[in-house]
Amino acid sequence: MFIYADNAATTRVLPKVLEAMLPYFTQQYGNPSSTYPLGQEASRALISSRETIAGLLGCRPSEITFTSGGSEADNQILRTAAAWGRKHGRTHLISSTIEHHAVLHTLDALQTEGFTVTLLPANREGQVEPDTLEQALTPETALVSIMAANNETGAIQPIAKLASLAHARGALFHTDAVQALGHIPLTLKDTDIDFLSGSAHKFHGPKGVGLLFARRGIELESLIFGGEQERGKRAGTENVPGIVGMAAALEEAVKNLDTNARKMADARNALEQQLLALPGTRIHSGNVPRLPGHLNLAFAGVPAEALLPVLGMAGICVSAGSACASGSPEPSHVLLALGCTPEEARCSLRFSLGDDITQEQVEWMAATVIREARRLRQLEHRI
Amino acid sequence: MFIYADNAATTRVLPKVLEAMLPYFTQQYGNPSSTYPLGQEASRALISSRETIAGLLGCRPSEITFTSGGSEADNQILRTAAAWGRKHGRTHLISSTIEHHAVLHTLDALQTEGFTVTLLPANREGQVEPDTLEQALTPETALVSIMAANNETGAIQPIAKLASLAHARGALFHTDAVQALGHIPLTLKDTDIDFLSGSAHKFHGPKGVGLLFARRGIELESLIFGGEQERGKRAGTENVPGIVGMAAALEEAVKNLDTNARKMADARNALEQQLLALPGTRIHSGNVPRLPGHLNLAFAGVPAEALLPVLGMAGICVSAGSACASGSPEPSHVLLALGCTPEEARCSLRFSLGDDITQEQVEWMAATVIREARRLRQLEHRI
Repeated sequence: MFIYADNAATTRVLPKVLEAMLPYFTQQYGNPSSTYPLGQEASRALISSRETIAGLLGCRPSEITFTSGGSEADNQILRTAAAWGRKHGRTHLISSTIEHHAVLHTLDALQTEGFTVTLLPANREGQVEPDTLEQALTPETALVSIMAANNETGAIQPIAKLASLAHARGALFHTDAVQALGHIPLTLKDTDIDFLSGSAHKFHGPKGVGLLFARRGIELESLIFGGEQERGKRAGTENVPGIVGMAAALEEAVKNLDTNARKMADARNALEQQLLALPGTRIHSGNVPRLPGHLNLAFAGVPAEALLPVLGMAGICVSAGSACASGSPEPSHVLLALGCTPEEARCSLRFSLGDDITQEQVEWMAATVIREARRLRQLEHRI
Repeated sequence: MFIYADNAATTRVLPKVLEAMLPYFTQQYGNPSSTYPLGQEASRALISSRETIAGLLGCRPSEITFTSGGSEADNQILRTAAAWGRKHGRTHLISSTIEHHAVLHTLDALQTEGFTVTLLPANREGQVEPDTLEQALTPETALVSIMAANNETGAIQPIAKLASLAHARGALFHTDAVQALGHIPLTLKDTDIDFLSGSAHKFHGPKGVGLLFARRGIELESLIFGGEQERGKRAGTENVPGIVGMAAALEEAVKNLDTNARKMADARNALEQQLLALPGTRIHSGNVPRLPGHLNLAFAGVPAEALLPVLGMAGICVSAGSACASGSPEPSHVLLALGCTPEEARCSLRFSLGDDITQEQVEWMAATVIREARRLRQLEHRI
C-alpha cells in the first residue's frame, strides 16, 4: 500500500489544476507585459487569477502580490513592516517561538539591522496566548507576526484576537497562513490582519508560486528589484502557469473545504484513537482546534529517525516535523517550544492526511505504525 | 499569419521540456527535503538537473543555485558582491548604462546603502569598451557587472576581456546572461567570471525559474531567509518541475545551438536587409556581434506606439524594447545610452526571432512592416 500522509510538506497537484496551467506553457505563453494579443491573454490570466484569489480571501485584487512561494512572501512582509516601523519610530518586532524559519530567520536578520525581537512562548498545547502578547506589546512595536496554524502540530492560533490586540497598540499584524490557507475558513474582510502569506503547493497547487496580501495603504518594500511587474513591488516575469494553477487550486480547496475538512478530521480522529491505544504514545496539541488533517504524536522510546525509514519502505510517507528543517539534526524547535524534552521531540511523528484518505488506509497505517514502533522498542531493549 | 518574433521577452515552452516536467506535478510530487522514497525521487531530480546545468556551463554543481528567475538571481548576486565588498573594504560597484533594470535598480538600492556606483557608457554600437572599464576600476571596486548580451539590441559584450580586467584589479565579475544563455556559446571553465545569472523562460523553459552561478569560495548572501534549501542560501520549497524543465530546456538549447543560431541569423539577416531597404530605417548595433535572432531598427517618423498595435492585430508579435519596461512611457534607456534621441528611441522596434522562423514568415513580416510603416508616415503627413 502507498499512503501519502505528509500533505503539510507538500501536496500533489490536482489534475484539474494542472489542466488549467497547461495552455500557458505552450500556447498562451506570452509575456504579460507585452502589448500584442498573445501577451494580453497572459495579462488577462493574471488579472483573473488575482481577482479569483482576492474574492476567495475577501480582499481587493490590488492587495494581492504574487511571489515565488511562502518563504519569499514572509520575507517581503517582514521587511515591509520593518521599513514601516523605521519610518514610524517603531523598531520592535513580536513573533512566536513556533513560527516557521522563514519568519524566524528573517527576524534574526532584522535583529542584526537594529530591530529588537520578542518571541512569545506557546503553551503546552502549542497555542500563543493573547495575554502574552498584551504584555509584550510596547509603543515601539511595529509588527506582530503569528502564524494562522502551526505546520508541525496543526494547532490553530487565535489570530483574530491577536490581531485586534496588535491594532489596539498601533502595531501591524501579519499571519503566515501557509499551512492554513485552503484548509480552514479564512477571510480578510473586516479583520485586523494587515499581511498574510500563502503558498500554492500546500493546497494542491504547484511548487514555486505563492502570494502575499498587504492591506491597502501599506507600501510594500521590494525584495527583488527590477522591472515594473506587480505594481513595481516584485520584479521578474510573472510565473503565469504557476499563478493560474494557484488560483485554480485555491478555488477548488475553498469550494470543497467543508467536505474535505470533515473527511480528513474523521480519518485523523480514527487514526489518533488507534495510535493512542499504543502505550507510551502522547499527542501534541490534542486539546486545541487543529488543522483537519494534522496529527502529531510522540512514541516514547521510538526515535523518528529509526521509525521513518521503516515506514517509508512500507509505503507510508510521514515526517518528523517540518520538511524545510529536515536537513537539520536538531530536534523540532516547535515541539521544544511546547515544553517537550529533546528526546520526546526526537520521538515524534507528524501525520498530515490528504482529502483522498480512505478508512482502509487509516487502519493499515495505524496497524503498521504500531507494529513497527513495538518492534523498534523490542530491538532497543535487546541491545 | 501569426509570427512570434519577441523571443527576447519570453519563449514558448518546448513540448519536450513540458513532457519532462509533467511527472513532477502529479506523480513525483514529493518535497525534496522529505526522506521517504517519494521525496528522494524529487531530490534526485534536483541533483540531476543541477549536474546537467553545471555540465553545460562548465562549472561545479555546487556552484549553481536555483532561483525564481533572472531578476532574483541578479539581485542576490549583487547583494552577495556588496557584502563581500563591505568585508574587504571595497564599496565601489561598476556596471553599465545598458544593463537590465534588475541590475540597475538593485544598484540604486545599494547606493542608498552606502555604495558608490559607476555606470560605464556604451559606444554607438551598444558595446561597453574595455578601455572605459580600465579607467573606472579603483582599489575600492568590489564588483563589475556587465551583461553577456544586451536584451534590446542583442549586442554581445566583450565579457572575457572585461572580466580579466576586473580580476586584475581584485574586483569580482558578474555577467547577467539572461539573454545569452542557450543562444550563444558560453562556458565558465577557465574564465574570470565569478557570477552569472540566467532565466529558463528565455530558452524555451518555464517562467518562474532561474539560476545563478557563484564561483566556489564566494559565500552567497541570502535574499530569502528560511529553510535550509539550496545549501541554506535560498529558502523555500524547490520548484521541482520548473527546475527539471530548466535543465531539459538548457540541454536542448545547447545541443541545437549551432544549428539554431545559423538558422536564426540567416532569417534575421534577410529580414534586416529587406527592412533596411525602406528609406529612413536605421539599425542599432548592426556592426557588432549580436545574438542570432535579434534585430533592432529605428523607423524614422513611425512611433512604435502606433506601429505595434497594427502589427499585433496583423499577427506579428514584436516589441518596442524590454518587456519588463513596457509598462513605462519612457523611451528605452538602452537606446538612449547608444546616443539615440528620445524620438529615435520611440521609433525603434525589436525583432527577436525564434528557431522555428521560416523564410515565408520573414518575407511576409518584412512586407507587412514596410507597408504599415509607410501608411503611418502618410497618415502623419496628412494631419
